[in-house]
Amino acid sequence: MPQNKQIHLDNRPQGEAAASNFKLVTAQTPELKDGEVLVRHHFLSLDPYMRGRMNDAKSYAAPQPLGQVMQGGTVGEVAESRHPKFQPGDKVVGFGGWQEYSVVDGNQPGVLRRVDTAHVPLSHYLGAVGMPGVTAWYGLVRIIEPKEGQTIVVSAASGAVGSALGALAKARGCRAVGIAGGPDKCRYVTEELGFDACIDYKQHKDAHSLSKALKEAAPKGVDGYFENVGGMVMDAVMLRMNAFGRIALCGMIAGYDGQPIPMTYPQLLLTNRLLLQGFIVSEHMDVWPQALQELGTLVGTGKLRPRESVADGLEAAPEAFLGMLKGRNFGKQLVKVS
Amino acid sequence: MPQNKQIHLDNRPQGEAAASNFKLVTAQTPELKDGEVLVRHHFLSLDPYMRGRMNDAKSYAAPQPLGQVMQGGTVGEVAESRHPKFQPGDKVVGFGGWQEYSVVDGNQPGVLRRVDTAHVPLSHYLGAVGMPGVTAWYGLVRIIEPKEGQTIVVSAASGAVGSALGALAKARGCRAVGIAGGPDKCRYVTEELGFDACIDYKQHKDAHSLSKALKEAAPKGVDGYFENVGGMVMDAVMLRMNAFGRIALCGMIAGYDGQPIPMTYPQLLLTNRLLLQGFIVSEHMDVWPQALQELGTLVGTGKLRPRESVADGLEAAPEAFLGMLKGRNFGKQLVKVS
Repeated sequence: MPQNKQIHLDNRPQGEAAASNFKLVTAQTPELKDGEVLVRHHFLSLDPYMRGRMNDAKSYAAPQPLGQVMQGGTVGEVAESRHPKFQPGDKVVGFGGWQEYSVVDGNQPGVLRRVDTAHVPLSHYLGAVGMPGVTAWYGLVRIIEPKEGQTIVVSAASGAVGSALGALAKARGCRAVGIAGGPDKCRYVTEELGFDACIDYKQHKDAHSLSKALKEAAPKGVDGYFENVGGMVMDAVMLRMNAFGRIALCGMIAGYDGQPIPMTYPQLLLTNRLLLQGFIVSEHMDVWPQALQELGTLVGTGKLRPRESVADGLEAAPEAFLGMLKGRNFGKQLVKVS
Repeated sequence: MPQNKQIHLDNRPQGEAAASNFKLVTAQTPELKDGEVLVRHHFLSLDPYMRGRMNDAKSYAAPQPLGQVMQGGTVGEVAESRHPKFQPGDKVVGFGGWQEYSVVDGNQPGVLRRVDTAHVPLSHYLGAVGMPGVTAWYGLVRIIEPKEGQTIVVSAASGAVGSALGALAKARGCRAVGIAGGPDKCRYVTEELGFDACIDYKQHKDAHSLSKALKEAAPKGVDGYFENVGGMVMDAVMLRMNAFGRIALCGMIAGYDGQPIPMTYPQLLLTNRLLLQGFIVSEHMDVWPQALQELGTLVGTGKLRPRESVADGLEAAPEAFLGMLKGRNFGKQLVKVS
């Protein structure tokens, strides 16, 4: 059996996460038992939610255990199989973590899914046609419930979730307005992703300035808001919400290092009779087939052209992850493992 | 036609509302036209929402106009009628405002409703069996959607909305926990209103202290929260919300004077996948008949024993109103006009 490089969580961040929280370890892949499958990873997914799990805090997911492989989504191919449903060479999506290989119990439902790579590149199953895409779908379709002609805003618009959100909103006849960091990302959001407008939040020093820019980008106000960020960006959008607006709360990356991120104007929730719903997509597995089908079609037909930032080699995962938390990635952040 | 004392909004508050914002005016009641009804008010309703309308700010309701009679709910009896549906002596609920008499167009649907005073005292139609009661009903039944055995918390529990909320929650087999200001109110909440527990927020200097007390009063956490107050109380309850908890946001009296009332831990909305919905009951007229029927039965059978603070005479309305905003009332605040 091959050697298997892994990245463990060695210690928990004090404030900002750092490379020293991680540790590179070389392990041996164990012999397969009956029903098990050895997967050789091609790509690891790096996602903001992982930062939350590095803390030892009460949250929706159990904390990432110390001294164990960092958990996360993976795509790859079957290297060896002692399960009749999987053959060597099969392309699969799983949750193999930050390592080169994973051993999977092929009988456990849902942990390993064979995918078609004829129309959708394998890596996209970690992004637009994977968890981030379904996250956008659930928040838009099940929480925001958009109607044709409405204005939908998403923060972190150039990212994996945001880009899918834009395509899904446009497909429903909505005006899609993105918020992103920097002119390159904003250009990508409007020119390649087809958003109607994008605001560079880095050009604004406070919520009122950002909110003013939003007034131009969303002249009829904001009916639906998909929130990935929290803090100042959320304050700014809330100031532009229309009566009966709906907010899907998916992430608050601004607060992942433990800094306070108060919501400055909660009274707007009352005066505008807003609905706000926090959610995590893994609790809504029932929507995945329908969502993945729509997302696959959007990618296959070129209506959603996701961008990827690919770090090279497992050893690069910690730095790529830390960069993503600071918004240095462009689109979906991946690590190419082999 | 009789003279009619009125209280007008003379000028808008700068910060805290004050008696000098109001002005007593004596007018003449006009001759009735065909279809009109003259109502002699017995009681005026004083409600926290009125403070919001005194500001000239964008909100769900248009601001209270300057130089005009303060708007608000009233109960009284028909003094004269030129409408076939109303006879002198009929007991009626309306929206006559802070004055002794109002002239109502009897043809306008819903503005004047004849009520039965055999089982429910007339004044209760401004409280438990009126707008405040329906407010509690809508928030509980349509937003919180409680299940038997769940724990429901309400702030301002001894008030008109809170007391109804408790009775409605108990009727659904829930644990009802109130938050109120002072030992007398807390005793009333548990001993007379039948809440399972009540916390005196005045005994706590910050949200963490209040939250700790709530842990004892709600050992299984909080499933549903009906919010009348905002600020520190809301922070404290949010720290105890269970996963998938639901928050009906009805009022934020803590912020009515324009002071900031940030929500300190919005990330809890995400980590606990909370739903939060702001609402105003006048936009949900469809539920009123069903809600009023249940509330009337609760009052008629003694399961809801609402308390009233009654100020004497129209001239006393401003001070009674200002006192209510500071929590000096006990139960529903009314003004006896005649």
